[in-house]
Amino acid sequence: MTPFFDRLADAVRAKKTALCVGLDPRFESIPRSLRELHGDDVAGAYEDFCLRALEIVAPLVPVVKPQSAFFEACGPAGMVALEHVLRRAKDLGLVTILDAKRGDIASTAEAYADAAFRALDADAVTINPYLGRDAVEPFLRAAQQLGRGLFVLVRTSNSGAGLFQDLVSDGRPLYQHVATAVAAWNRESPGTVGAVVGATHSAGLKLLREQLSDVWFLVPGYGAQGGTAADVRTALWPDGLGAIVNSSRGVCFPFGPEETNWEAAVERAARLAARELATTAPL
Amino acid sequence: MTPFFDRLADAVRAKKTALCVGLDPRFESIPRSLRELHGDDVAGAYEDFCLRALEIVAPLVPVVKPQSAFFEACGPAGMVALEHVLRRAKDLGLVTILDAKRGDIASTAEAYADAAFRALDADAVTINPYLGRDAVEPFLRAAQQLGRGLFVLVRTSNSGAGLFQDLVSDGRPLYQHVATAVAAWNRESPGTVGAVVGATHSAGLKLLREQLSDVWFLVPGYGAQGGTAADVRTALWPDGLGAIVNSSRGVCFPFGPEETNWEAAVERAARLAARELATTAPL
Repeated sequence: MTPFFDRLADAVRAKKTALCVGLDPRFESIPRSLRELHGDDVAGAYEDFCLRALEIVAPLVPVVKPQSAFFEACGPAGMVALEHVLRRAKDLGLVTILDAKRGDIASTAEAYADAAFRALDADAVTINPYLGRDAVEPFLRAAQQLGRGLFVLVRTSNSGAGLFQDLVSDGRPLYQHVATAVAAWNRESPGTVGAVVGATHSAGLKLLREQLSDVWFLVPGYGAQGGTAADVRTALWPDGLGAIVNSSRGVCFPFGPEETNWEAAVERAARLAARELATTAPL
Repeated sequence: MTPFFDRLADAVRAKKTALCVGLDPRFESIPRSLRELHGDDVAGAYEDFCLRALEIVAPLVPVVKPQSAFFEACGPAGMVALEHVLRRAKDLGLVTILDAKRGDIASTAEAYADAAFRALDADAVTINPYLGRDAVEPFLRAAQQLGRGLFVLVRTSNSGAGLFQDLVSDGRPLYQHVATAVAAWNRESPGTVGAVVGATHSAGLKLLREQLSDVWFLVPGYGAQGGTAADVRTALWPDGLGAIVNSSRGVCFPFGPEETNWEAAVERAARLAARELATTAPL
């Protein structure tokens, strides 16, 4: 079984960019034409929007990251839409990361891993480390067995992230303790465990790149959230691999809801961001 | 709008016990007779089991806590089952806590709050504080607006919980920093924010009871996980309110899968646990 991060590296090499497109279908951002087409069927509008976005970005980027919350808010119909979006992404040759930030223990964590890797068939899932080792290990076993990946929240991109993540213990902030555990988990299951590190915390990004020299990063916060291409380049290895950089709003919603030619706007934004995050990793 | 914890207090007074029944339908624990009845329809077996358990426990306990992960692992059909279980619990007069341990920021957290409080119509949801203030505030606004509740993970009951939760910063473990934030959030929205504190960490439970003198606790880890009634009684206020104590396996699965008279076993276990956790709160 090819480890997840080897598959991700191949995908980044093939598309020559570290850009990951986040699929966060907020209702108020969806083009009005699609909203009207689907009427009360919000899940249908989300699915339609995401499928159209996938067709546009699939030739340009290696990986997409649907945000589970927006689909869950639609109830069971939203989960059907999320399944369809993940399946189409896979059919288009994209690597998929389910952004779900799950965290629980024992058989409950196994059930969440089943939900992500079997029911939804995502290639990777984001997880929350607060519950400790037993919240990660069931995901780790499932990921290793199925050739899937985990991205553990280390230092997030939101303005309030520091409240707990920056608390200093034994001379190091909490997020560095989490980083140490991530490195150990990835040594146990090589090519399986990555770290979520926000672009908006550039000092932390640089420190963590040194501390986790062989761990892949998923970097949110680029673009609409304020992180620049220069900020995020520090997350890449010298060979252009080692990090994927997420843009959600910046790529998927560079238009107002009245825009009729929104697909062209998405394509322009995706091309621009892919070029800004172009990598020169040798094939 | 009656604050959530006033409603919970009324329910505990009415049933005279702090017992919360966790609905964690693990496939291998479901009675074989139900599994055979539903064949490949695992979600149907989960729903059937939980609905039967609800009929048994509804006269005995104030509150139930379905575990989202097991339903999610069944795909969209599982979410339909979870909806039905939550709706029936509400119809039976039970307070419902969706155990989902969600944590995300901004509009994503709003979408998770919508999923819990609108799509699934749960009375309360468990949330994970790792992302900081912006991961809690959108839930807080939604809960306050809708008269719903939050239980924030503070010190969990699992054996690996201490890896991060016990790291000491400024002379106090991380979980006490989280507890301080929980107290502040509950002052901002009185009767809205509670704390998850594991029964298996009895020193922490006692400390936190002193620190969070007016905050409700959801106490997992009682029964099958090893916490005793004496351990958890320290979480109660002198008036018998202030905490609900969860038992999942101990109440719902006190039998082997071959047991045909399993409903009687559930009723006996529920009566026993309800009595062990009897409160004398005046009506």
